[in-house]
Order: sequence, then structure tokens, then C-alpha cells
Amino acid sequence: MAEYLVASRPGYLRQTINAQLYEDAVEFVCRPGKRLRPVLFLLAHRIFRPPGQAVEERDLLAIATSLELLHGFILIHDDIIDRSELRRGRPTLHRVLESRLPTYADPARIGKNLSLVLGDILFALAQQCLLDTPSVPPATSLRLGRMLLTCLMETGFGETADIFYGTRDVAKIGLAEIEQMYLLKTTRYTIECPLAMAAALAGASDEAIAQIEKVARPAGLAFQVQNDLQEFERFEISDAEVPADFLEGKKTLLIHTAFELLGETDRALLQLCLSGASPSDASVSMAKELVTRSGAVACLRRRMQDLLEEAAAAASSEVFTAGQQAGLQALICLVRDAANRSSRPA
Amino acid sequence: MAEYLVASRPGYLRQTINAQLYEDAVEFVCRPGKRLRPVLFLLAHRIFRPPGQAVEERDLLAIATSLELLHGFILIHDDIIDRSELRRGRPTLHRVLESRLPTYADPARIGKNLSLVLGDILFALAQQCLLDTPSVPPATSLRLGRMLLTCLMETGFGETADIFYGTRDVAKIGLAEIEQMYLLKTTRYTIECPLAMAAALAGASDEAIAQIEKVARPAGLAFQVQNDLQEFERFEISDAEVPADFLEGKKTLLIHTAFELLGETDRALLQLCLSGASPSDASVSMAKELVTRSGAVACLRRRMQDLLEEAAAAASSEVFTAGQQAGLQALICLVRDAANRSSRPA
Repeated sequence: MAEYLVASRPGYLRQTINAQLYEDAVEFVCRPGKRLRPVLFLLAHRIFRPPGQAVEERDLLAIATSLELLHGFILIHDDIIDRSELRRGRPTLHRVLESRLPTYADPARIGKNLSLVLGDILFALAQQCLLDTPSVPPATSLRLGRMLLTCLMETGFGETADIFYGTRDVAKIGLAEIEQMYLLKTTRYTIECPLAMAAALAGASDEAIAQIEKVARPAGLAFQVQNDLQEFERFEISDAEVPADFLEGKKTLLIHTAFELLGETDRALLQLCLSGASPSDASVSMAKELVTRSGAVACLRRRMQDLLEEAAAAASSEVFTAGQQAGLQALICLVRDAANRSSRPA
Repeated sequence: MAEYLVASRPGYLRQTINAQLYEDAVEFVCRPGKRLRPVLFLLAHRIFRPPGQAVEERDLLAIATSLELLHGFILIHDDIIDRSELRRGRPTLHRVLESRLPTYADPARIGKNLSLVLGDILFALAQQCLLDTPSVPPATSLRLGRMLLTCLMETGFGETADIFYGTRDVAKIGLAEIEQMYLLKTTRYTIECPLAMAAALAGASDEAIAQIEKVARPAGLAFQVQNDLQEFERFEISDAEVPADFLEGKKTLLIHTAFELLGETDRALLQLCLSGASPSDASVSMAKELVTRSGAVACLRRRMQDLLEEAAAAASSEVFTAGQQAGLQALICLVRDAANRSSRPA
């Protein structure tokens, strides 16, 4: 990926004030991460490709790179929106830029503005990368492009739902709304889209692609639930690791499940803890205790198991060959384990 | 365009909190505007298309719509960056959203965050629109997509240069740097890209497309210069219409030319007027007087004439047929007059 980015550096940047900015964007997307989306795409393509398919390795890697660049774009804008400080163990991009401009009148604002535009540039670069694959038939490239753009629109509307819910009373949001938001915001571009694009590239039938989506949705939702749980469990062990979602008043499935399980008084307490714009230490630790006491963790573990079983059942469909079925089961395990390995949704 | 947007509304929006948000984005992009980019594309296609070309009207309009949607995306993000209040005579999108959320803890922040994401969604929708043109050969669609994305990356780097220059002393930026920033930020996606895409769609030769760029660059720069001048002239007549660029300390060609023309003391005064983060009424009116006194307006008028002549000369190239030459000359006049009609760069 770093090679692609260096090779793609526009010529007009070389002598300008923007050269360093491009380096910053490259540093950001090249930070160590799970690379879940490119890995899923490449493995799924191996599962579905017909013998002797003529797509070149270089072009497969370009599509995989495109997925990772889009993820970078989404993280950069998310971090601005959530006012996050850290990403993949280093300062978020807007904080990196801010720290480089100490003599400016309003470095925090300039840092955010520059990273907003760098996110847009990465979006354009990712699309370029996807469409620049000479060994892929043009009609197929167009189809992959449209699939990805549909997912990205959904990601956007998942993000706006998340922003709205963050400002709302937990009692006024249903569990189904939160699951829908997870699906739109993360699951589709993280799990479903890489798998469906790989299958489409390999020439899978529309029926097979529709069935892949039935595998990917529950698997992806399980991945998100697992992420919520992981984060909360680290927080139970160490108070230092307060989940960002807690601080931002985000309505996670965990919070919502706890709310549903608690009695009337505890519910009111939890609402109170989550209602402030920037919660105090006391309200964070109270919310933590309420979530622990509610039994929401055990409840979500069961939900996660159910989702993984649903995904496994969908993967056993006769639409797939035996080899494809086995491959998809392995991918489901990979998604489950990826969530276990993650420190933050990445 | 409104029809396309309504037809493209994703089904999952119907019952959710996001439905209104989509309406807001549609209202924003459908506000009356010059539609310069789609008009240039459609006219240029008429100039270059071979007799009997099979691209359907619907698909031409889809590409034209895509150009306008991308412009909407750029305006939305620009308005967040510049903290603008008004766009096309109504509140900017982030202000519209802010005013709809009066009970929220931090409506200004939520409004900006939502409009940031809506900008991203419009970017994706614009690409969708461009790639969904069944009567265009897929390889041509890919080519148009890549041309547009290259321009958008340049727009991004023009924007970041603009952000940087806004924080810098006017004496430390050269005229060539500002012209380069104008070219990247606006000229290419506004003038050059619609013309070059239309010619590529019509099957023009690479030589012809390269020559079109030689027409578009000076014409586009003249358009930007004209915009600067128009804005300043309205400001000279009425103090109520302070150009946003003045308030944001933007380094326009006008400011820079004034700086070059002024004597030493006046230069220092102008630097002082532009150095504050949010200038006072006194410093704005002093800057205005200095610009007026410098003769920069007359100087830029000459520069504009030179640029228009350069464009006209490039349009007379023998690469083009006599009909194409006449068509391009008419487009140059259209660009010149569009700047005259505009209230703000739109």
C-alpha cells in the first residue's frame, strides 16, 4: 500500500506546501492495523475464483488497497466527528496536523480543516485505485465501483444515525434501530462489501452474491457486538481505558441491552449518567457499574453466538460448492477472531 | 436533478431519523445556481460529438448531474471549513441543520458533523450517478471517472493550500503560488474537467483533449479573477457586502497584487490589516482603502483580458475543426459572462 501511495503522489505536490500533508496521510493509512477488509476481499476471491481467471495479482492488490484507503478516509472523518485523540496507538490525523502548526492562530481548527480535506482526497484516491485495474473487464470494474459506492452511502447514513442517537435519550431508541445503525455504519463496508465484491469479480452468480450477504450480515454484526464487549471488558479491568463511546454518550448495543435489563430505578440512573454532554468521572463509573450489574454482557454473548450460528447456517447453503462452504466457514471464524484481536474497531 | 435525487433516495431512509437529512441535502443542491459545470459539459459535448453518436440524453444528463452533485459536496465542506453563514442566498447546510436542533447540547457541532457526512454521501452519490450510464461504453465510463477523480484530488490539494496560505503573511506567498492554488482548487473541476470529459465522451483525440486543457486553464483563471473583482467592486459600493475572503484573511490574487503595487509603508499596513484571526471593522475598511488605492483592480482587469486572449488563441488551434473553434470561442464568452453574473464563486 505504501508503494502504491508513493507512486500515486501527484507531481504538483513535490515543490509545494502540501508535500508534507501527503506524507502525513500516507503515514496515517500505513499504521499497523488488522487490514480486515483487504484480507477478506483477497481470501474471498480465492474461494470463489474460477480456475485460470485472468485477473492479475497487481489488480487484486489494487482493489484490496482501495478498500483500506476508504477505511482510512472513514476513520479520519470519524475521528474529527468524535473528537478522538488516538487512532491505532498514535495521535489522530487532525491532532498530528495540529501539533505541527503551533505558531498558527487556531491550530486545532486548522488541523481539523486540513484533515477533513485529506479524508476527501483519500476517498478520491481510493476510487482511482479501484478503477485503475487493467486486467479487470471494464464492465466488472464499473459494477465493483457501484457496489462500493452504495455501501459508502450507507456508511454515511449509519454515521448520521449514530450522531443523532448520541444526542438522544437511551429510552427513546429501540434495539432494532441500533442494530440497523451498526449494519449501515460498519458491517456493510467492513464485511459484506469485500466479500460481495470478491465474488462479483470472480464471476459468482447473483444468487450466490445474495447468499453471501446473508452470511456477511450476521457475521459482521457479531463482529461489532464482540468489539463492544471487548472494549467494555478492558474497561472493567482497568479504569484507565474508558471506551470513547462512553465519553461521547454513544448508544451502543451494550448500553441499550443494559437499559432493557435493568429495573426502573437503575434505568433512571443510567439515563442520568448518559445524558450529560461531557460526563464526569463519577457518572462514567456509575454507568460502568450499572452495565456490569445488568447482565448485559452475558446477554450479548448469547446474541453473538446466535449471530455466528446464523452466519454459519447461511454459509452451508447449497448455492455454494462444498469448497466454497468450507471457505466461508473459515472466513466467519476469521471475522470472529479479528474482533478478539482488536483493541478498537479498526 | 431533483428527480434523480428523489429516485436515488435509498429505501432504508424512508422510516428513519435520516429521512429529513436527505431532504436537506436535496434542498441544498437544488437551490438556484448557475449550473456552470453541467452547462459547460453539455455544450462541449454538443460541440465535439460525432454525427449519430449513441449516447442517450438520459446518460448525458446523468453525467451533468454528477458534476453538479460534486460541486455541492465541495461547497458543503468548504462552508464548514470557512465557517460561512450563507450559500446561494440561504443559510449554509451546517447552519440549516444547526437551526433544526435547538434542544441539543451543542447544535453548532452536531450541525457541522452531520453536514460533513452529508458532503461525503453526496460525493458517493455523484460517483454513482457518473458510473450509472448504460449507453456509455464501460471503458469510457471508467475513463471519465478517472478524469474526474484526478481533478477532485487536485481540488483537495488546492483547498489545503488555501487553508495554509490563509494563515501566512501575504509577503511570503508568490503570485505564482496563488495562481497555482486557484488552478487546483477551482479552475480544473469547474472549467477544464467538464470540457475534457465531454470531449473524451465524444471520442475526441488525446491531442484535442490536451488542446482543450490549454483553452480551459486561462479561461478558468480569468473566471476566478473576475470573481475576485466582482466581489471587491460590490464591497466598494456597499460596506455591507464584505467579501468572506477578507474576513477569513484569504490570500486572493487581488490582495496579493495590491501588496505588490503598494509602497513600503502601505505594504506594512496591509500586512497588519490581514494578520488578525478575526479582523475588526477598522482593519477591514483600511484593507479596502489600500486595495483601492493600489490600482490592483485595473492591473487584474488587464491580467483577465490577457488570459481570455490566451484562451481564444488556444481555441483557434488547427487541432479543432472550424465548427469546434467557433463553439469553443462561444464557451469562452460564456465563462467570462458567467463570472459577471455570479454573486459569489458558485
